[in-house]
Amino acid sequence: MNLNIALLAGDGIGPEVIDQAVKVVNAVAKKFNHQINWTAALTGAAAIDAVGEPYPDETHAVCMAADAVLFGAIGHPRFDNDPKATVRPEQGLLKMRKKLGLFANVRPTFTFPSLIDNSPLKRERIEGTDLVILRELTGGIYFGERGRKDNGDTAFDTCTYTREEIQRLAKLGFEMAMGRRKKLCCVDKANVLESSRLWRETVQDMEKDFPEVEVSYEFVDAVAMRLVQWPSSYDVIITENLFGDILTDEASVISGSMGLMPSSSIGIHTSLFEPIHGSYPQAAGKDIANPLATVLSAAMMFEDAFNLKEEAAAIRAVVNKSLAEGIVTEDLAGKNNKAYKTSEVGDWLAANI
Amino acid sequence: MNLNIALLAGDGIGPEVIDQAVKVVNAVAKKFNHQINWTAALTGAAAIDAVGEPYPDETHAVCMAADAVLFGAIGHPRFDNDPKATVRPEQGLLKMRKKLGLFANVRPTFTFPSLIDNSPLKRERIEGTDLVILRELTGGIYFGERGRKDNGDTAFDTCTYTREEIQRLAKLGFEMAMGRRKKLCCVDKANVLESSRLWRETVQDMEKDFPEVEVSYEFVDAVAMRLVQWPSSYDVIITENLFGDILTDEASVISGSMGLMPSSSIGIHTSLFEPIHGSYPQAAGKDIANPLATVLSAAMMFEDAFNLKEEAAAIRAVVNKSLAEGIVTEDLAGKNNKAYKTSEVGDWLAANI
Ligand SMILES: CC(C)[C@H](C(=O)O)[C@@H](O)C(=O)O
Ligand SMILES: CC(C)[C@H](C(=O)O)[C@@H](O)C(=O)O
Repeated sequence: MNLNIALLAGDGIGPEVIDQAVKVVNAVAKKFNHQINWTAALTGAAAIDAVGEPYPDETHAVCMAADAVLFGAIGHPRFDNDPKATVRPEQGLLKMRKKLGLFANVRPTFTFPSLIDNSPLKRERIEGTDLVILRELTGGIYFGERGRKDNGDTAFDTCTYTREEIQRLAKLGFEMAMGRRKKLCCVDKANVLESSRLWRETVQDMEKDFPEVEVSYEFVDAVAMRLVQWPSSYDVIITENLFGDILTDEASVISGSMGLMPSSSIGIHTSLFEPIHGSYPQAAGKDIANPLATVLSAAMMFEDAFNLKEEAAAIRAVVNKSLAEGIVTEDLAGKNNKAYKTSEVGDWLAANI
Repeated sequence: MNLNIALLAGDGIGPEVIDQAVKVVNAVAKKFNHQINWTAALTGAAAIDAVGEPYPDETHAVCMAADAVLFGAIGHPRFDNDPKATVRPEQGLLKMRKKLGLFANVRPTFTFPSLIDNSPLKRERIEGTDLVILRELTGGIYFGERGRKDNGDTAFDTCTYTREEIQRLAKLGFEMAMGRRKKLCCVDKANVLESSRLWRETVQDMEKDFPEVEVSYEFVDAVAMRLVQWPSSYDVIITENLFGDILTDEASVISGSMGLMPSSSIGIHTSLFEPIHGSYPQAAGKDIANPLATVLSAAMMFEDAFNLKEEAAAIRAVVNKSLAEGIVTEDLAGKNNKAYKTSEVGDWLAANI
């Protein structure tokens, strides 16, 4: 196949981990006879520095023309703690999500047997955890009207949802549940918020179309607890944008495999694949960042965007092999083992595909 | 002293745990020569059943006349999963918070050495944790304008904050930090929300008045992670209503002592003290619920509302004694020990004050 991939490396460790994913994807392409056309484009702080805009029109054009987008990470400490900054890398992220119509962020949380002891949770609490959070990504309070009143002394944000937005996300959740353990949990705050009541109402109306799926409704505060107490009790979770932001991050740390967790954002115009970790500026340029989450995001891309399952399986297999043989970066090496450089891990993975 | 306490037992296990706190408070009053005037009043589902209203005017009058309110729990499964119910117990709670001006919910999370192994977290992660979350309780998206448009197909909620609301809460946070380890973390989503930018701006302006306090600013998603990873790194956390709802619940499960965690809500007209656990309807009427969180909430009441520190210390001492001697309910007894009934624990505590 001829595959057009937009490459958005972004900030911090983004470029380093993306480089390794490119090596691995190129190796897979060679083995399975695909032609990859990479097109790199600027985003985040890097784009602000170059052209004064975190998601330039040119980058958008590149994404629109691509079969998929492979994304690193964005964010730079220079922009933090400055509530008055007018251009922020995150604005680029939100603009990109909206313009590409990336309405569903898919975040799996699962465990690697060899890494389970890295979890902050006790082994018996985390074992067997295999859940996916589907976060609505282009609606809610992220994109509602906001502003100031009373000479700046009052600030407001608006959370808005339409029935269609909820249906679109929930449908994906029901379908995903059908391909898994057939359990769906809708997370909201329906005891307080009107938008949550619309979520609950809409999902309840859809239950009849998926009679095999067992649906539960839980409040976001209760889920924040249960994710720590019994994460293995969840299968598919669907939720709105802001709750999803908080819960996906909470879920990401419980597995002990944060540095390995991939994600995808399913869109109207294209889909995007990225590691769940951030730009980790302290590690940038040191060739120490763990590239596996980005490499596994590339596997997700082969499977979900290109429907090339063997290629995805080949990537996952070589990642498992690297874990088994200890060809890993310092975060996974442990005290008594050799830690490999980011680039060394990438080279090894590409050579062993 | 002559102390007027409003007694709002509420739903589920509320009445049972409140009964034990009353026994303990009466024993303390006897020992220290105070006169307690208890006035019971209806709230929650119990009040809906009796008078069709979850926070009746009569209950409000009782609270306004009291020096403090001791609260059990509210909520009943009969009202869950019904997005169209027009009267809900939770509305009573919100109305009560607003009318009593309970602007700050104070939720400590700490560990009991003997219970640390109940935590879902590994011992080395949770040991030494001693943090307080100060949640703003009468503003934000809980109390903003909300409604439907487009024939019910669009729903919206509004989050509004004023500089004064933020200052009032933050001042308490700075003062609390001064009496503790002098660290304050302001939690927001300032990279997206205008209301969060006002929070950050306001707290930054207040830093100069508390030069000894080390202030940090973190995004709510990052805090949802760090609470599970390094909870002992926090001292005082301040945050807005909805983030506080999620984070206080998440924090409550990490200590392993959920059944022991008290809370207070500081108000303009009076203050309220309650266990952090819910109404736990499955256990209601069985005399098995753990009353210690409510008893420790009464200790908080003596210290914070009445400024009677010795009385508070006496209650905490007898609770520690009951833990040390294993006079505990089934949730704490463990497999091989005798489990005491709720009422037996209360009797023992009162007798041992
Ligand atoms: C950077 C920020 C705007 C973003 C979000 O809140 O969506 C991030 O936390 C994420 O989850 O991708
Ligand atoms: C019952 C509900 C409205 C309430 C809240 O969200 O404030 C509860 O979760 C709490 O934290 O006291």
